[in-house]
Amino acid sequence: MRLRLTPRDTTFFDLFAASAQHLVTGANLLGEMLGADRPTRKELGKRMADAEHAADDATHQIMRRLNSTFVTPFDRDDIYDLASTLDDCMDFMEEAADLIVLYKVEELPARVSDQVQVLQRAAELTAEAMPRLRSMDSLSEYWVEVNRLENQADKTHRKLLAQLFDDVADPILLMKLKEIVEKLEDAADAFEKVANTVETIALKES
Amino acid sequence: MRLRLTPRDTTFFDLFAASAQHLVTGANLLGEMLGADRPTRKELGKRMADAEHAADDATHQIMRRLNSTFVTPFDRDDIYDLASTLDDCMDFMEEAADLIVLYKVEELPARVSDQVQVLQRAAELTAEAMPRLRSMDSLSEYWVEVNRLENQADKTHRKLLAQLFDDVADPILLMKLKEIVEKLEDAADAFEKVANTVETIALKES
Amino acid sequence: MRLRLTPRDTTFFDLFAASAQHLVTGANLLGEMLGADRPTRKELGKRMADAEHAADDATHQIMRRLNSTFVTPFDRDDIYDLASTLDDCMDFMEEAADLIVLYKVEELPARVSDQVQVLQRAAELTAEAMPRLRSMDSLSEYWVEVNRLENQADKTHRKLLAQLFDDVADPILLMKLKEIVEKLEDAADAFEKVANTVETIALKES
Repeated sequence: MRLRLTPRDTTFFDLFAASAQHLVTGANLLGEMLGADRPTRKELGKRMADAEHAADDATHQIMRRLNSTFVTPFDRDDIYDLASTLDDCMDFMEEAADLIVLYKVEELPARVSDQVQVLQRAAELTAEAMPRLRSMDSLSEYWVEVNRLENQADKTHRKLLAQLFDDVADPILLMKLKEIVEKLEDAADAFEKVANTVETIALKES
Repeated sequence: MRLRLTPRDTTFFDLFAASAQHLVTGANLLGEMLGADRPTRKELGKRMADAEHAADDATHQIMRRLNSTFVTPFDRDDIYDLASTLDDCMDFMEEAADLIVLYKVEELPARVSDQVQVLQRAAELTAEAMPRLRSMDSLSEYWVEVNRLENQADKTHRKLLAQLFDDVADPILLMKLKEIVEKLEDAADAFEKVANTVETIALKES
Repeated sequence: MRLRLTPRDTTFFDLFAASAQHLVTGANLLGEMLGADRPTRKELGKRMADAEHAADDATHQIMRRLNSTFVTPFDRDDIYDLASTLDDCMDFMEEAADLIVLYKVEELPARVSDQVQVLQRAAELTAEAMPRLRSMDSLSEYWVEVNRLENQADKTHRKLLAQLFDDVADPILLMKLKEIVEKLEDAADAFEKVANTVETIALKES
């Protein structure tokens, strides 16, 4: 195991930027999936699984570097948290996509696109913010906006839940839709946790 | 960002006490909700949302102070954990209250009041214990009792689950009740985690 | 509270080995439960509850020692994480066993034994690996294999979910089976987290 002794390992920033880029891919695949027919969904699901593997590799790379580096650009625990929560975002999006294929759901309620649009926006903001960790520049706009998006996602989620129970008479279909909707909400929560970790890092540096 | 250089920032104790006080409010609102009719429940649900926002502000205040303080009364990680787990207690209670309103559940099984009474007692004990963090005085009674309460809550929860599956023939009603009952159990678990964090802090100081 | 001042508290290794041994017991009880009739399942459920209590005691012993020891064989946080994740493995297995009894499920799908076999193998590997923490000897084989097992468990889990929704027409039975299957998947995830924590510890020491 080589140990790096440079005062600040700049490549962490590149690794985080790469990791967040996979989230943009994932959120966009989810967006494409909503309007697609079943064979296309299956195809998109495979690309989603690839994106999840790529994100997984990125996380492992960060962890390995973390464990072999003496001096890190910010607290080890914060690096660990940031890598894990970025990974969680991807896992929840991939699980949602997988359930859409697995449960052979024909039609998803319109509000599900609202959920996915929030994820797409949160993923873009996160990918744009990661390179700014280097200079700690205008990060507060990012975490304020992601927190606002998560509040919006939470309201959408609760309305969706109420609507599902009002509209869907078939309990088995209800179970399927509820689980998909919850995974998307879990993904929105995970993006908020990423933003909170970035806030913690930025406040310590200020 | 101002940095405080006083050797021990005493206001953390006040912030934790304030945070725990919101839990008492929340648990009592849940208690009121059980016997109420639907319009009253809606009204109580709004007050619950207010309590959750107030608790959220309290958590953010603790986090902000943590990030801007050099010397903390105990380990930074333990302060972080204590603030987060207190916040989790509130979140789960608010979610349970919200689901009761959202799902328009008419009647809740009698054992649900047992669950809520445990939460009310755990919230009171937690609020009484927070100011004692300053002197580390008689904290063991608190965490022992909350652990006992959580064991009791866990047993009630499992009996309730079995009972729901035995008694409720309508799968959609069953799904609703199960989810409410689980959020209440999550809240009881979160109170236990608060107590475990306090135990960790106290043992380090002893 | 006595403080130990020996440079490296070797008993942590023994405590982790003991803790992991309970997981072997738990996973094997789950295995026995699958083929058993209802009265036998109830009996096995009681033995599972005993194993869970024993594991709980082991965790508390580790935590108490951690809080009263100055110099630990590896990072305090990693010791804490390792103890908590070992505990999670047991909790999920016990919950799965309890639900099998509580829900009076007659027959479990064949793939559930695949899930349980993965848990049995993961528990054995974990119990064998714990004593090797002392010498950090051939630990990578352990974590690579547990990660492989978890991937396999994840695939089995997803196939099982799809199969349940295809085959089980009764929504209430579906809810029961889905919850049991998910607890078993949670247990497999927890074993992977144990392996990841061991990897973190080993990489820091290398």
